[in-house]
Amino acid sequence: MSVEAHAGRNRIVILGATGSIGTSALDIVRHNRDELEIVGLAGRRNIDRLEAQVREFRPPVVAVYERDAARTLQKRLSELKTEVWSGPEGQERMGRLAEADLVLTAVEGVAGLVPTLSAVEAGKVVALANKEPLVAAGELVIARAAERGARLLPVDSEHNAIYQALKGHRPEDVRRLILTASGGPFRDHSKEEMRTVTREEALCHPNWDMGPTVTIDSATMMNKGLEIIEARWLFGIPGDRIEVLLHRESIVHSLVEYVDGSFIGQLGLPDMRIPISYALRYPKRLEAHFPPLDLTKVGRLSFSALDPDRFPSLSLAREALRVGETMPAVMNAANEMAVEYFLQGSIPFIRIPELIERVMKAHRPERNIELETIQRADGWAREEAAAVLTRWNGAGRI
Amino acid sequence: MSVEAHAGRNRIVILGATGSIGTSALDIVRHNRDELEIVGLAGRRNIDRLEAQVREFRPPVVAVYERDAARTLQKRLSELKTEVWSGPEGQERMGRLAEADLVLTAVEGVAGLVPTLSAVEAGKVVALANKEPLVAAGELVIARAAERGARLLPVDSEHNAIYQALKGHRPEDVRRLILTASGGPFRDHSKEEMRTVTREEALCHPNWDMGPTVTIDSATMMNKGLEIIEARWLFGIPGDRIEVLLHRESIVHSLVEYVDGSFIGQLGLPDMRIPISYALRYPKRLEAHFPPLDLTKVGRLSFSALDPDRFPSLSLAREALRVGETMPAVMNAANEMAVEYFLQGSIPFIRIPELIERVMKAHRPERNIELETIQRADGWAREEAAAVLTRWNGAGRI
Repeated sequence: MSVEAHAGRNRIVILGATGSIGTSALDIVRHNRDELEIVGLAGRRNIDRLEAQVREFRPPVVAVYERDAARTLQKRLSELKTEVWSGPEGQERMGRLAEADLVLTAVEGVAGLVPTLSAVEAGKVVALANKEPLVAAGELVIARAAERGARLLPVDSEHNAIYQALKGHRPEDVRRLILTASGGPFRDHSKEEMRTVTREEALCHPNWDMGPTVTIDSATMMNKGLEIIEARWLFGIPGDRIEVLLHRESIVHSLVEYVDGSFIGQLGLPDMRIPISYALRYPKRLEAHFPPLDLTKVGRLSFSALDPDRFPSLSLAREALRVGETMPAVMNAANEMAVEYFLQGSIPFIRIPELIERVMKAHRPERNIELETIQRADGWAREEAAAVLTRWNGAGRI
Repeated sequence: MSVEAHAGRNRIVILGATGSIGTSALDIVRHNRDELEIVGLAGRRNIDRLEAQVREFRPPVVAVYERDAARTLQKRLSELKTEVWSGPEGQERMGRLAEADLVLTAVEGVAGLVPTLSAVEAGKVVALANKEPLVAAGELVIARAAERGARLLPVDSEHNAIYQALKGHRPEDVRRLILTASGGPFRDHSKEEMRTVTREEALCHPNWDMGPTVTIDSATMMNKGLEIIEARWLFGIPGDRIEVLLHRESIVHSLVEYVDGSFIGQLGLPDMRIPISYALRYPKRLEAHFPPLDLTKVGRLSFSALDPDRFPSLSLAREALRVGETMPAVMNAANEMAVEYFLQGSIPFIRIPELIERVMKAHRPERNIELETIQRADGWAREEAAAVLTRWNGAGRI
């Protein structure tokens, strides 16, 4: 780990610029103009926000996934010299932009897989805020990163904490990785109470301000399941040595347990700007422009075991990791569908893991070392999830 | 930090073998015979214990400070080939033993200064469990270590934690070092209640099982003051960026705060075998032969600010560090005397800081880069402390 920060500014592309992580990243760039420079921004469709971002950060190029929106943005930016790219090929091209030193992948869901792979294959430093490329295609992404010399810097607070807690220590001395979990909004709900929770309750996270999908994933604890799979690929530690620890305050972001009885942990306020900024100018740390954690104000940190019975999604994720091959991709796609159905009001909260389980049970796993295999499994799982919903509706089970 | 563990066993000398740290270190050696080997043991006068240790670990040489005791031990070991050295020159010679890779300095008090310097000057890896060499002669010890390429590995749980929390990260990114403090037996005592505490109460530490001097130092919080001075020299961070945080459970052993709002901490059970074993085979970690920390069993960790008013020793230590030169050596010697007087029943608990302050006020500091200057200041402070005690007795103030 002898990488040194180079002398010039770090040239950054953000995939998913208009989301929660993207806007936090731009806030860091705003406060560190002498260290960071935006050379490309990509979004799905929110061109109002993209327009404002382009006017503020002046990247030479911007990519919009939806073609109509791209055309509109091009008109709005006509007096600037900004190039506007569109469609999936625009996102992919942005991932391998020659001018970029670092690509922050902050797209939600499996949609981030192709542009992330594109950045990895171009040998970029990839700041990963998008779980799904590693969940659905971990083996592939890690193999390509090794081939191309792409460094992966995790932005998820838990993985960023583990990255920091491993750094400088011998990997062979690691006993376990311990992912902390706030437990989400339903950490104190009984199974019975979870039957009737609403969309609004599920969207109200006690500690973190995040996008809707990841917030629901926190409520089901699937989020922690995805993180176990991610950690397995990022750090090369088998799933049975990755534990989850309930820690309500979200101050200890995760821990590494070593064989000698030492634990190294990373702590901080639950503010995504901390792990994002760690990645943006790695290995140099950028000075925070907000007050740091004061442990005397926090007063107490609590830790307890998680009740697996109330959070079946976590066991489904462990099972997908155990089976391997295309199963994690299928589980992930089924989860994305189930969360969408819940947010639309089509299924109640407790049906989310049930739907995932049905899809997983119907799947015949295949080796997943090719992108096409993963995309096919993902597509199959989405169709299967829709079919299950139709059957449930037909049987009057919703 | 690219040092690798060499292939053979680490050959170890223990200075202060019969004390609390020494016996814990031997317990680790006992469980790691394929990694560690004892090549020399040194003690002050406890020859019963030294004899048993020599018979178990079979070092070729043992050193006893007191000459009569050394002669007795030599007779007792006559059927073995063990050489027995005596006097201060035996201790010093043990510090630079040619056969040793690592010297663990676990002597109590300033008596460890000369043998520690001897180990440093011989370019050994020095596992420092003795605070006073750095407190009294930090500038000298650090300068010599740099000249001779001696690596200093801190064994104090706090400094060991900071060492681990700095490792792999850029020193220029450090904002503060945060030393945790259990607060000792009187953390909840009012100033009024501290007037009447007994020797037995002061010797009863809530979390750690340690020697009597360091236990009294924990009760006055001078221990934390000495640690601030030690940390300043070990890590090159000025005293005003070294904070103390009250943490009753002694699970988070200390933390480093970085400029980006990240804190890295080392956690573990309050068991000195963890930091000792970290040092003995550095950089390789030895597998613990006892159950590790289970945070779900600990449940809660608490943090609060320290009330400086109730622990004046801490301010005296900060003042000594600020003044520099021979002042820390004088403060340390005065503290050792005051603790001894308290343990003998000559002064009450609350007079400990008062006595130190008197001695410090009477001192005219000198540059401390020579061993002789430090030893002279140490000797002067002990005489001055005795003189203050005599005056107090004469004035009927005790």
